[in-house]
Amino acid sequence: MIQIALLGFGVVGSGTAEVLTENRTIIEKRLGEAFNIKYILDLREFPNHPLGDRVVHDIAPILADPSVKVVAEMMGGSHPAYEFTKAALEAGKSVVTSNKEVVANFGTELLRVAREHHVSYLFEASVGGGIPIIRPLRDDLAPNRIFSISGILNGTTNFILSKMKNDGADFADALKEAQALGYAEANPAADVEGKDAARKIVILAALAFGVLLSPDEISVEGITKITKEQTEVAEALGCAVKLIGHTERIGDRVLALVSPHLVPAASPIHHVDGVFNGILVDADMLGKTFFYGAGAGKLPTASAVVSDILHAATDATELPTWEKATPDRVADPADRVCRRAFFFKGCERCAEATKAHFGYEKFVLRNGGFAFIGCPMNGKETEKAIRACGKELCWTLPVLD
Amino acid sequence: MIQIALLGFGVVGSGTAEVLTENRTIIEKRLGEAFNIKYILDLREFPNHPLGDRVVHDIAPILADPSVKVVAEMMGGSHPAYEFTKAALEAGKSVVTSNKEVVANFGTELLRVAREHHVSYLFEASVGGGIPIIRPLRDDLAPNRIFSISGILNGTTNFILSKMKNDGADFADALKEAQALGYAEANPAADVEGKDAARKIVILAALAFGVLLSPDEISVEGITKITKEQTEVAEALGCAVKLIGHTERIGDRVLALVSPHLVPAASPIHHVDGVFNGILVDADMLGKTFFYGAGAGKLPTASAVVSDILHAATDATELPTWEKATPDRVADPADRVCRRAFFFKGCERCAEATKAHFGYEKFVLRNGGFAFIGCPMNGKETEKAIRACGKELCWTLPVLD
Repeated sequence: MIQIALLGFGVVGSGTAEVLTENRTIIEKRLGEAFNIKYILDLREFPNHPLGDRVVHDIAPILADPSVKVVAEMMGGSHPAYEFTKAALEAGKSVVTSNKEVVANFGTELLRVAREHHVSYLFEASVGGGIPIIRPLRDDLAPNRIFSISGILNGTTNFILSKMKNDGADFADALKEAQALGYAEANPAADVEGKDAARKIVILAALAFGVLLSPDEISVEGITKITKEQTEVAEALGCAVKLIGHTERIGDRVLALVSPHLVPAASPIHHVDGVFNGILVDADMLGKTFFYGAGAGKLPTASAVVSDILHAATDATELPTWEKATPDRVADPADRVCRRAFFFKGCERCAEATKAHFGYEKFVLRNGGFAFIGCPMNGKETEKAIRACGKELCWTLPVLD
Repeated sequence: MIQIALLGFGVVGSGTAEVLTENRTIIEKRLGEAFNIKYILDLREFPNHPLGDRVVHDIAPILADPSVKVVAEMMGGSHPAYEFTKAALEAGKSVVTSNKEVVANFGTELLRVAREHHVSYLFEASVGGGIPIIRPLRDDLAPNRIFSISGILNGTTNFILSKMKNDGADFADALKEAQALGYAEANPAADVEGKDAARKIVILAALAFGVLLSPDEISVEGITKITKEQTEVAEALGCAVKLIGHTERIGDRVLALVSPHLVPAASPIHHVDGVFNGILVDADMLGKTFFYGAGAGKLPTASAVVSDILHAATDATELPTWEKATPDRVADPADRVCRRAFFFKGCERCAEATKAHFGYEKFVLRNGGFAFIGCPMNGKETEKAIRACGKELCWTLPVLD
């Protein structure tokens, strides 16, 4: 009998109990034995829930109970989730989590502690909700050198951008609708300012390159300044505006950033609409592989938690070794070579002279200005071209390859 | 030191040697020890290849060598690949394969033999080339009941259909171009008649539902009869014609089929262009998840083979238990409830009366006829509606949800 403890009985925690209960037969068949949810740690009581009698308010009995093999941490926030996770690993229990904040901030240490105690620390649910991405990256892509990972990692912002594109809404109205539908929180800052996506992209970067960057120190730009004009110009250029978490290796350094990008229709990311997530991995042997699905939500996220519980209960999964990023391992975003879209004020005649400084493809005239997609350049070359052309730049956004 | 034998040194076999050699460092880091390609079984000699001295022409020394832990079978065809696989498993060696024909025809038995000898039989490369799909289905989706799997499982036919759609080519010209580019073989029957996709969909069906259907007994229709008119009408209805492998559970029975479908733009499968593959899985907890990438090709397929070698060398992977499909477990394709597109001869006035028998959405007039997408019906209801409307049906195709 596998004894399980759930930490946190909110959306994901109660969803995990639901998946475990609803699909108990297939899960126990896979486990090869029965399981039991022995403890549920939460500050609240749940007297009317069928598992209400499992609720405890203190981590101590869980840590002290040698029968508990797997702890699923779904509390959210860094503290006390980090402390509880570390204590559980030190007590010889495997921990699985949906908590991207803890993984992004303390993953290096927690993976080390797990290895030292011969237990697992798994976090499939921390990125992309229910989409299988962490385990495929670790397992299926293991024979590959990864070049880059780019993705829509936050469903709330993608819903807002989809609304702006499909209905011509502006940011404020689209945000209001997302809030009314429960896709955005009353305080939407973590989503719309890109912080949630930042935590996820540093986790993916660590899986790809072995170096965990701090989500607070990477370049992060959200979608609060995205305008209807940008959405329309993007469409005229054959693209959609998407909030992209991106990581790539530049020499020996790792770049990770979150920024609105123009995504061309040829990319599978272009077609990710609404609250879905989509993640594109580019690797040396495999080429481009794309993973798409429910990036959040109670049951999809819980499905990922339960798949980790299955692994933690049955295997000794080989855990990755991450290094904490020292400054010499962190790439400067200005060193990224990519295409960019530019919108300059001016007439068609000005445009001809301007384009010559950039090389370009696709060109549109709009609102007393002109927009085009330039050739791949790094940040310095881009700045130089902007200075050299002498025209007034209204805005520029990177284009995803 | 992990000793590996490769059976077959064609495209995938030599690609596997290339992946193992090129990325030896990261692969050995993951294995936790060194590996060696000890044998390469092929009828030919490769005197100029760096691994030419490993070539043998007889399986016997490989089977007799107790140091060989993993055998990678990439011979293609059922025989002698099946016999060699069985003998290797019985000799206590794990086998990994890219050979969909063997898995689709003999998977039930080979998985049983592997379990009996406490070794692995893994086949990530048999479906979707390099795309991670077998392991995610087994591992990440383990807590889910799967409703259906639908996908573009053959890159050759998708290239041809993409050409027909994007360039207005007819089937014969698009096939010629595919052959000229090396995407289609001189004898393209296995691809264009849907046999390759049939093998893959029965493997996916077995993973989802535990029952292995015979690829020769399921309903299989290829793309040889797809016309420019169908391609154009599909587009007018907001869809693309795609060759789809589809499996779903109907009651206690399993349906698996291969057929051209109309795929609406809202589906991620719609946007899979050219030689790529894309597979959509619908599951109870996770909802819809989509996997996209290189469905064939030397290095992508080899990447999947090597990921299986890594697993076979390090884990005792829990293998699925498949049953051979008895007639009482096989669903009648006519019991599938789905929307269908219809093209009838007739004028706009005839159309009004006709549509009433089907319920409909989207409607177009074209070429002295009219097309629409009807409401979901099973086969009998569809036939009844066609008879009742009394109009001449030119063609009908299922629509993917």
